[in-house]
Amino acid sequence: MISKLITEIRKKNAPVSVGLDPSLSNIPKKIIDSAIAEHGETFEAAGAAILEYNKAIVDAVYDLVPAVKVQIAMYEQFNIPGLMAFTETVNYCRQKGLIVIGDVKRGDIGSTSVAYAKAHIGKVQIGSASLPVFDEDFCTVNPYLGSDGIRPFIDECNTNDRGIFVLVKTSNPSSGEFQDRVLQDEDSTLYETVGFKVKKWARESMDGKYSNIGAVVGATYPKMGRILRRIMPESYILVPGYGAQGGVGSDVKPFFNDDGLGAIVNSSRGIIAAYKNEKYSKYTEDGYADAARAAVTDMIEDITGIF
Amino acid sequence: MISKLITEIRKKNAPVSVGLDPSLSNIPKKIIDSAIAEHGETFEAAGAAILEYNKAIVDAVYDLVPAVKVQIAMYEQFNIPGLMAFTETVNYCRQKGLIVIGDVKRGDIGSTSVAYAKAHIGKVQIGSASLPVFDEDFCTVNPYLGSDGIRPFIDECNTNDRGIFVLVKTSNPSSGEFQDRVLQDEDSTLYETVGFKVKKWARESMDGKYSNIGAVVGATYPKMGRILRRIMPESYILVPGYGAQGGVGSDVKPFFNDDGLGAIVNSSRGIIAAYKNEKYSKYTEDGYADAARAAVTDMIEDITGIF
Repeated sequence: MISKLITEIRKKNAPVSVGLDPSLSNIPKKIIDSAIAEHGETFEAAGAAILEYNKAIVDAVYDLVPAVKVQIAMYEQFNIPGLMAFTETVNYCRQKGLIVIGDVKRGDIGSTSVAYAKAHIGKVQIGSASLPVFDEDFCTVNPYLGSDGIRPFIDECNTNDRGIFVLVKTSNPSSGEFQDRVLQDEDSTLYETVGFKVKKWARESMDGKYSNIGAVVGATYPKMGRILRRIMPESYILVPGYGAQGGVGSDVKPFFNDDGLGAIVNSSRGIIAAYKNEKYSKYTEDGYADAARAAVTDMIEDITGIF
Repeated sequence: MISKLITEIRKKNAPVSVGLDPSLSNIPKKIIDSAIAEHGETFEAAGAAILEYNKAIVDAVYDLVPAVKVQIAMYEQFNIPGLMAFTETVNYCRQKGLIVIGDVKRGDIGSTSVAYAKAHIGKVQIGSASLPVFDEDFCTVNPYLGSDGIRPFIDECNTNDRGIFVLVKTSNPSSGEFQDRVLQDEDSTLYETVGFKVKKWARESMDGKYSNIGAVVGATYPKMGRILRRIMPESYILVPGYGAQGGVGSDVKPFFNDDGLGAIVNSSRGIIAAYKNEKYSKYTEDGYADAARAAVTDMIEDITGIF
């Protein structure tokens, strides 16, 4: 699957993903009001509003970017109808030829991680039928439980040609609380130690020069990105935290290899709520999809400009 | 919420939860066949089979135990119908007066953790309506992202009188890979350091003598349980890994305080698939609910016998 992502990144010259992480407060009032008029103040209304908003954004940007990152928490908060909107968003993006990264951050003990791995990048068996479930191309995974929590995901990567990004150094302010601690035996930090594990796991699912086993490293920590880039030479890095969280183009340079590959930078609010940004205010609320397209264009220019 | 759990534990004299973590391979063939006959080889069939199986087990044990732990991965793998069975299971257990622990192991950066916290132990706003979502009493949370990923859950605990159990030392074989590493500045392990954080977070949501902020520590690591019991005196410990994963009554003694409180021990497969165990084979597959009741009775006797 990583070779497919690389092909699409090259074709569009855009190592960029758009984060479809909708919150109702970012969706134009007109869409919310119309969904509530039809469905009442219900989860169904939230699901319908999210789906309409997402589709217009996808229509406006799908020719520019190789991938979307879909943050399941923003859907899960609206119960079953929210998760139906998640599924429909995943399917819609795939129909448009986009690669879908499910930002699900799952992770559990081995026997339970099997269920999560099947749910997101695998298939489950019911009687004689083998059915894909949420059917993302990649998903994000939490490493706190160690190898036996990760291995079922690696197995699904190999069985179904999928990929994962393991959380290594997250973009949030308090990520250092545990991740930056120095381990006594290693004289290296926890995030580096997780990075070394990712390097090892990566060898178990190679797909060309790169591996299906990647890592999440926040744009907000460029120095650590440089270190981790060296530790995990065969892993793609999914880089959140660009844009609304503060990262800019020059911050993400260390996440790339010299071949211009090795990283994909995500922006969520900076794209999907661009219409709220002074810079794109001329598009107005009604033009939120055009504003998203303009913001994607600027982001691609910013990031490809670093090479 | 923790005071409510303690009241129920005392009333039933059972510091025990039953893990409703159904896999199709543990559900009697008759139930699966009948669900497939009605719904075909579909997610709907899986959801229907799980719900029928769960309800019979709940009917057989609800008077014996204070709580159930519902592992969402086992439902999420069956897509929307699976998650509908999760919701219906949660609701059914609450109607029976059981406290519901959602074993969801969520955790994300601050702004996204807000969505997960609302999804599982809070309410979301849609127009003027404020709606509970999956509506568990407690949920489990992954600490890898640090305080800003945990804080939204603490806020929901305080707003809605709910609780959480933070993963500290998990029950699986590879949990030590990262959790057991010694941190240089602290001269203590990562799991102890997370434990010290739990102690701090616990002070932010006290409910009587104990806090709504608890911890997950596996029965498979009793020595570490003893250490963590001392580090987090005000936190309840949710103890998975009893039974099928190998823990026995004497293993869980260190997880309790001298007052006989401070821990709740969970068994999943050991109860819900007891009919497959030689010891309960007289109940046969059809008597799986009676076998579950017998296994719960034995488990309560084993655990209360340690005091």
